[in-house]
Amino acid sequence: MDKEIITVDLGGTQLRAARYDSALNLLAREHTLTGADDGLEAVLARIKAIIRLVMPANRERVESIGISAPGPLNSKTGVIVAPPNLPGWHDVPLGAIIEAEFGLPTYIGNDANVAALAEASQGAAQGCRHVCYITVSTGIGSGIICDGRLVTGHAGLAAELGHIPIIVDGGRVSSIELEAAGPAIARQARQAIRAGGNSDMLAVAAGELERLDARAVGMAAARGDALAVELLAYAGRIIGLGIVTVLHLFNPQIIVIGGGVSKTGELLFAPIRETVRDHALDSAFTAGLRIEAAALGDDVALVGAAALAATQGGDIDIATLDRRF
Amino acid sequence: MDKEIITVDLGGTQLRAARYDSALNLLAREHTLTGADDGLEAVLARIKAIIRLVMPANRERVESIGISAPGPLNSKTGVIVAPPNLPGWHDVPLGAIIEAEFGLPTYIGNDANVAALAEASQGAAQGCRHVCYITVSTGIGSGIICDGRLVTGHAGLAAELGHIPIIVDGGRVSSIELEAAGPAIARQARQAIRAGGNSDMLAVAAGELERLDARAVGMAAARGDALAVELLAYAGRIIGLGIVTVLHLFNPQIIVIGGGVSKTGELLFAPIRETVRDHALDSAFTAGLRIEAAALGDDVALVGAAALAATQGGDIDIATLDRRF
Repeated sequence: MDKEIITVDLGGTQLRAARYDSALNLLAREHTLTGADDGLEAVLARIKAIIRLVMPANRERVESIGISAPGPLNSKTGVIVAPPNLPGWHDVPLGAIIEAEFGLPTYIGNDANVAALAEASQGAAQGCRHVCYITVSTGIGSGIICDGRLVTGHAGLAAELGHIPIIVDGGRVSSIELEAAGPAIARQARQAIRAGGNSDMLAVAAGELERLDARAVGMAAARGDALAVELLAYAGRIIGLGIVTVLHLFNPQIIVIGGGVSKTGELLFAPIRETVRDHALDSAFTAGLRIEAAALGDDVALVGAAALAATQGGDIDIATLDRRF
Repeated sequence: MDKEIITVDLGGTQLRAARYDSALNLLAREHTLTGADDGLEAVLARIKAIIRLVMPANRERVESIGISAPGPLNSKTGVIVAPPNLPGWHDVPLGAIIEAEFGLPTYIGNDANVAALAEASQGAAQGCRHVCYITVSTGIGSGIICDGRLVTGHAGLAAELGHIPIIVDGGRVSSIELEAAGPAIARQARQAIRAGGNSDMLAVAAGELERLDARAVGMAAARGDALAVELLAYAGRIIGLGIVTVLHLFNPQIIVIGGGVSKTGELLFAPIRETVRDHALDSAFTAGLRIEAAALGDDVALVGAAALAATQGGDIDIATLDRRF
């Protein structure tokens, strides 16, 4: 009998679930609101309910459950540590709770790790064994596949590219995320305008400095606003240095970049590529290296959670996916 | 019949070779001078000759050859790229040359990668599956073991911790190695003294600014010289930030630090530990983390090259070493 996988995408706003066959064909799909403000117990009840919605009549068909959840989380123990967008969640053993409820092996991965598996199995990094996926949005997360296996680390905490420390401003320790994620871009834009910078970013944000977010910076940059272009270029240079770090430590063959800020396209990608070229130790690190936009859309977390379950939490080589899916 | 491994430690000054049984007992050991200044062909002839010196009468006993060599090198192809301390070496296919000469599978790893395997199999990181080894001397190199396997990357270039970009100051980008390796420490000491800094480092260096090296800084610091202590502390803070990067990307359970500069002990280790504690994203990354001095001595490269050959270039889990050795 063909085995099926149930997957859940637990987001701060949306809660989705799906069921896939072993060839990763979608068999069922449901979505609802997470209702995070209702607190832990209410959200747990909704997760169990949406899993029941996609469960087949014959439960025996289901092999395992894969869950994409916001980090920080421990992928080894299935414990959600304390995601900023899930108020009241602190050290929640979600894996054990779902396993106990449904009697099925349950694998949990943070959204960026799961997206790396999705891009490697069906997206921009198909066929690659050394992959770094980076998401740039309200935070900067990453998922790394090293010689076919997801890098999870001793306690399942690995691949936090956004939190790589960098020293800026003559001695201050900052991080890739604090310098280049969406909120950082918006903060720098507001600072520049307060300091009298000449830009029509403020007009994009309807004249209100508080509404000036990274999206407004991106829109102004797309129209050629010089200050907005420079702010995205700075973010690109910082992300590029993060990628140089990844190249020197992991020597991957492809970097896949997703997340809302990446939709600014070449305004972000051009400075990233230039920085990588300028600061890689040797051309051997960049020979044949691809730096590409993520290929998968909204279902990336559901597909990735299926890949996570199929690789037993990333412990098994992704080559097994080729034989399964 | 018990299988044996022949190993070579190709250094800029010393050339060593050994033979181990499958329990890693030393059966034979030879050393000579590399004679790097005599050029490529002369050194290749010496490597072949020293291998013959440790070869058993019955060649059938030997399973493979492991070589520790200075980087940059491609561990996948066995090509030595261009080590600064081996003049005239440029893209030398050492693996293929030795394989052709002796008809034995030959595995080549850079000295830091090989040392990581040695420390994991017989040294400070015994029993650990998630290990980062760092060597701080004239350069800063590293070797990383991720879930039991050596991280080599797509083209065998991985784990160059020294070349992580760490400082972004206006337009200047600097790396861990350029800020904290031995030559950087010496350069900063000379700059401080030229600028009128009060220190007896110069006395340690017999009054000659050109002779003021990292070793002299270490000796002065050991006597309590404040400027020397501060220079080592700065190096420790920079190395500590490199370790924070490794924690966030790999989430290892142990950091092993070797190399000449590490012999300054707590003068370097205390600021490293403090920086790691201050800048790790979450205590989950440092809970149970060990930061320790390397345990193996001069034979680290020979032992590590044996482990490299036994794991077929790091492709096989180090758990196999427990069963072999």
